[in-house]
Amino acid sequence: MQKADLLILGGTVLTLDEQDSIIDPGDIAIKGDTILEIGPNLADKYLSSEILEARGQLIMPGLVNAHIHAAMTLFRGLADDLSLMDWLRNHIFPAESRYMNAENVYLGTLLACIEMIKSGTTTLCDGYFFESDAARAVRDAGLRGVMAQGIVDFPCPDVPDPTDNLRQAEEFICQWKESDRVKPGLFCHSAYTCCPKTLQETKKMAQKHGIPFGIHIAETQTEVREIMRQYGKRPVQHLADLGILDETVMAVHCVWLDPEEIDLLQKFQVKVVHSPESNMKLASGIAPIPDLLQKGITVGLGTDGCASNNDLDLFQEMDTAAKLQKVARFDPTVLNARQVVHMATTGGASVLGLASEIGSLEPGKKADVITLDLKKPHLMPIYNLYSHLVYTFNGADVNSVVVNGNVLMRNRKLLHLEEEKIMERVSELAGVIQKGQV
Amino acid sequence: MQKADLLILGGTVLTLDEQDSIIDPGDIAIKGDTILEIGPNLADKYLSSEILEARGQLIMPGLVNAHIHAAMTLFRGLADDLSLMDWLRNHIFPAESRYMNAENVYLGTLLACIEMIKSGTTTLCDGYFFESDAARAVRDAGLRGVMAQGIVDFPCPDVPDPTDNLRQAEEFICQWKESDRVKPGLFCHSAYTCCPKTLQETKKMAQKHGIPFGIHIAETQTEVREIMRQYGKRPVQHLADLGILDETVMAVHCVWLDPEEIDLLQKFQVKVVHSPESNMKLASGIAPIPDLLQKGITVGLGTDGCASNNDLDLFQEMDTAAKLQKVARFDPTVLNARQVVHMATTGGASVLGLASEIGSLEPGKKADVITLDLKKPHLMPIYNLYSHLVYTFNGADVNSVVVNGNVLMRNRKLLHLEEEKIMERVSELAGVIQKGQV
Repeated sequence: MQKADLLILGGTVLTLDEQDSIIDPGDIAIKGDTILEIGPNLADKYLSSEILEARGQLIMPGLVNAHIHAAMTLFRGLADDLSLMDWLRNHIFPAESRYMNAENVYLGTLLACIEMIKSGTTTLCDGYFFESDAARAVRDAGLRGVMAQGIVDFPCPDVPDPTDNLRQAEEFICQWKESDRVKPGLFCHSAYTCCPKTLQETKKMAQKHGIPFGIHIAETQTEVREIMRQYGKRPVQHLADLGILDETVMAVHCVWLDPEEIDLLQKFQVKVVHSPESNMKLASGIAPIPDLLQKGITVGLGTDGCASNNDLDLFQEMDTAAKLQKVARFDPTVLNARQVVHMATTGGASVLGLASEIGSLEPGKKADVITLDLKKPHLMPIYNLYSHLVYTFNGADVNSVVVNGNVLMRNRKLLHLEEEKIMERVSELAGVIQKGQV
Repeated sequence: MQKADLLILGGTVLTLDEQDSIIDPGDIAIKGDTILEIGPNLADKYLSSEILEARGQLIMPGLVNAHIHAAMTLFRGLADDLSLMDWLRNHIFPAESRYMNAENVYLGTLLACIEMIKSGTTTLCDGYFFESDAARAVRDAGLRGVMAQGIVDFPCPDVPDPTDNLRQAEEFICQWKESDRVKPGLFCHSAYTCCPKTLQETKKMAQKHGIPFGIHIAETQTEVREIMRQYGKRPVQHLADLGILDETVMAVHCVWLDPEEIDLLQKFQVKVVHSPESNMKLASGIAPIPDLLQKGITVGLGTDGCASNNDLDLFQEMDTAAKLQKVARFDPTVLNARQVVHMATTGGASVLGLASEIGSLEPGKKADVITLDLKKPHLMPIYNLYSHLVYTFNGADVNSVVVNGNVLMRNRKLLHLEEEKIMERVSELAGVIQKGQV
């Protein structure tokens, strides 16, 4: 008998490896933070102090939320059904400047982590202010994250003087660079809130430290018009000419692209993040995802912040992603269920530069695993697992969650976080925020 | 003290009455199948043998699923990501003709009822074959329903000779006409599967018995072209000229309407049912719902059958409905959360001709009530209940369900249905269906 630290026993294992292997029934043996072996009857081969029973359950890689502003859970539903500029300028920006501080970013990010664990997300890519506090929350919650400090050319709650942005960002990077699960990144808000110099210097710093560089790009028609007016070219061309684009760039939204811009994304191997629910709710538009995939461009899936979604459930995001492309193209065969499942797992892992570590269940990869109940009325009957994951499951069907070999949730019970206490603190703060709004 | 049969105590009551009153905290006193009173402190006024504790919960009218083919739960995920005609002709129609019989329609409808109860739907409008068996399932499950026998001009599993359609339909109508919760209706599949004579005779029979008449209309561009080719006019005009249209007509889908057709729907006070998720998944198109609402046309919300959705969760359908219109119109203010909540409650009730009985919580109306948990991480914080209902809640957040004064689910436990046994029988049948497909 060999020694393992955790055995997950007796489910149907959807590996999402290159062959899309399904092992049924299958067990997973985990040592430390790593998957040792996947196969049948591993209980006969491994001795383990900890067992996760998954009989009758689906076992799959944890989902990757490739774009989120986690602390914005605090503003969930604060301002809906408004025009983008009204929403941003009269509600979100004022609320952020009044209520976002180190403590509240920690709290809001912790709430987001709880929601993500309970809906099967094991890795997130965050972009916000006070990113060190957001990173602390993700670390404390046990999730895996790329935590990208936000950069804009105007004063922010955490960096009142924008000329101090990069100095502070580098401090943040050095602080988190050597950590294990939680890695730093940089996130320029956009080409209309960051001047060319800011974009280039931020990119240079990301390169210096070998960390991902994220940016909202081509989200709205207004943005494209503004960049055209200022620089005489479209957003992706603008970034290309500034020397920003390469395979470590996470281009978020990419709704309004012309064919030349798609070619640029392909040429520079830029990674794209699709956030369909946010794009719908803010009426931004419909990203040409099938065209990107056809060019071999890597696409991940993100929920975006809670204020424009208003949840962090990637199962619902997968459902919407698949359906939205079908109706937009008048073609029900476009963006099939298997493609969408890969966007939310292997795709997201590639976007974050973590393809060799997570995204699929394979020996040697990190043990980020979720299990899903299969025996519920709304999941019956089951003909095709991919189809079910996209069109039928939702986050509440997640049973147990393992990140880096640690069980974070078992039978829907969080093992390390004080759910009740955190909800109470959020409620108190929301009372203050709501009063401030009146 | 007065006598009541059921007291729902201590939640936030969203009445959805004409003033959109919210009573917080509020109780509901129920006698038999009817709401007696809504207000605070009713436990001081009423003695009741049965109590439903709803402290800290949201109390609201049960949702109305205005268009569903309930028994198609049996085909959930059987054939996805296919073109409409491939899907229908090579998968759904063959599966229906092979596996749909009285027993399986009863079983599939029962499964649908369980899913609906567990996701907060208390009333459905079904349209299918073997409708008497579907009606038995809805009656046995304790739900409220308008059960519409399907009519088409080709042989069906339940009526092999289509000339026998109306005789059998009338038998069905007479059998169910006097029943309480479960009422009969008629559903012509479409103007391309029912000739003018069938449409007119079916309509005449619906009028004779004073029951609703449903039809899929203007669902796809192909349908519009086909009707134009056959009759030289667009579908709604075709129905108007046949004398079909009036306020008891439930026009399902209405995706492809021209302005004259919208005027006709308004003129004849036709009721419209919107099924955005099905329209997206089958790539049919986007219905002009804001235009219909602006004309004062009543719109309800339906999930459509499970094979084209693939669930019966009206909370997710509300979310999609709101977001889809925003992106389609490039206007985030369009179809706001309150309008969508009304579509899924008061709107659906009007569509089914039940506006005086259900859809809102008011004394004298039927006691169809659901309660929702409010204290869950993904629901925190709460600023606006309407926004939360549309953008954040999903079916799994429903705690308890009351229909016609009877508690069907308490703390997510079904009180009258043998969930496990029904799931087992569905699993067995699905095994046979899947074998038949290979």
